[in-house]
Amino acid sequence: MQIPVGVSARHIHLSQEHLTVLFGAGAQLHPKKDLSQPGQFAAQETVDVQGPRGKIERVRVLGPVRPETQLEISQTDALKLGMQAPVRESGHIEGTPGLTVIGPQGQLDLQMGVIVAKRHVHFSLDEARKYGVRDGQELALRTKGERGLIFEHVTARVSPTYKLDFHLDTDEANAAGLHTGDEVEVIELEHEHGQEHFHGNEIIRVDSSPDVGKTPESVR
Amino acid sequence: MQIPVGVSARHIHLSQEHLTVLFGAGAQLHPKKDLSQPGQFAAQETVDVQGPRGKIERVRVLGPVRPETQLEISQTDALKLGMQAPVRESGHIEGTPGLTVIGPQGQLDLQMGVIVAKRHVHFSLDEARKYGVRDGQELALRTKGERGLIFEHVTARVSPTYKLDFHLDTDEANAAGLHTGDEVEVIELEHEHGQEHFHGNEIIRVDSSPDVGKTPESVR
Repeated sequence: MQIPVGVSARHIHLSQEHLTVLFGAGAQLHPKKDLSQPGQFAAQETVDVQGPRGKIERVRVLGPVRPETQLEISQTDALKLGMQAPVRESGHIEGTPGLTVIGPQGQLDLQMGVIVAKRHVHFSLDEARKYGVRDGQELALRTKGERGLIFEHVTARVSPTYKLDFHLDTDEANAAGLHTGDEVEVIELEHEHGQEHFHGNEIIRVDSSPDVGKTPESVR
Repeated sequence: MQIPVGVSARHIHLSQEHLTVLFGAGAQLHPKKDLSQPGQFAAQETVDVQGPRGKIERVRVLGPVRPETQLEISQTDALKLGMQAPVRESGHIEGTPGLTVIGPQGQLDLQMGVIVAKRHVHFSLDEARKYGVRDGQELALRTKGERGLIFEHVTARVSPTYKLDFHLDTDEANAAGLHTGDEVEVIELEHEHGQEHFHGNEIIRVDSSPDVGKTPESVR
């Protein structure tokens, strides 16, 4: 099974409340580019983020707005900001650190939501059935080339609103020499696991999940 | 077989001629910290490097001086500098790009020598014999943890002056969640290969090789 690659640059999802704080009353996101997952887009809007030891400017906002604000960075970014960021699935932000987010009309002290996104593959229902994959299952993916490697523990995420795409961050892409549009191969279907984010007998992820379409494959 | 990990931050090796250009007549490197490979050290000296679209300050100089100047950066750094840097073994700098190197007493337009270092394992002669590994052979190394993965095509480098250590760059370390002092496991001895950097029947790398002890495991 070949799966297309989408490299996720750092980005932020905003709640409506936080969008208003940062961009002013009545603010809306303006789509700049569609992302691989249906309905998701990179917005024209950007914010700056300030950590304990460093600042990163022009972090792309993704739309639409989410129930909770979430900043997804690489480990390289975390070092630059001077903070720890745990590897998490999108939406699982309990106990994660916050930082200062700066917009053109205001700033906010985010209390939590800074994560390094756990690498994952999006599957539509049809794609999941075709490949015999279930939501929450872990896959091993092999890349080719001079920096070829095998990513283990890649989470399968299945939803009617998804489309086949392997999402990894810029550290992972650089380490493997991968670019958006490359392909990787599934070499093994790992055992399903019993962690809190395994959805039991469900083959679908509910549409209201904050995880839906979490990543841009652009913006570097 | 467990192998200790040494994460290589960006660094530069200087020729005596270039050291003089950057730091003035009679300049010498002053050791700041010993590295894992015997005789190699991180110097107190640093330089700035300027690429087409960005600058990186305070790049650590490693000593002793080498026959040729070589800047080793991550792919992340290359993007920041705005340049392509090929993945190469240390010392194989033919056809690689250059950039501007800035020291306290002068600057130079380096004509070539900017690389992303190919990941590799250093073995002493005894270690190589013990594990049945030959210089130039490729290994597959498995890491553990939530970002666990398998690095394929890891080059074994054998020399009397080496000591067991797996060297990878910061992108690779961040992608795998590895830190200096962690351990990885050899899971497979890949076939020896016939590329130009395979040293045939030699089990040792000659001591005058510019590759000797190329990496710091510090400085991030």
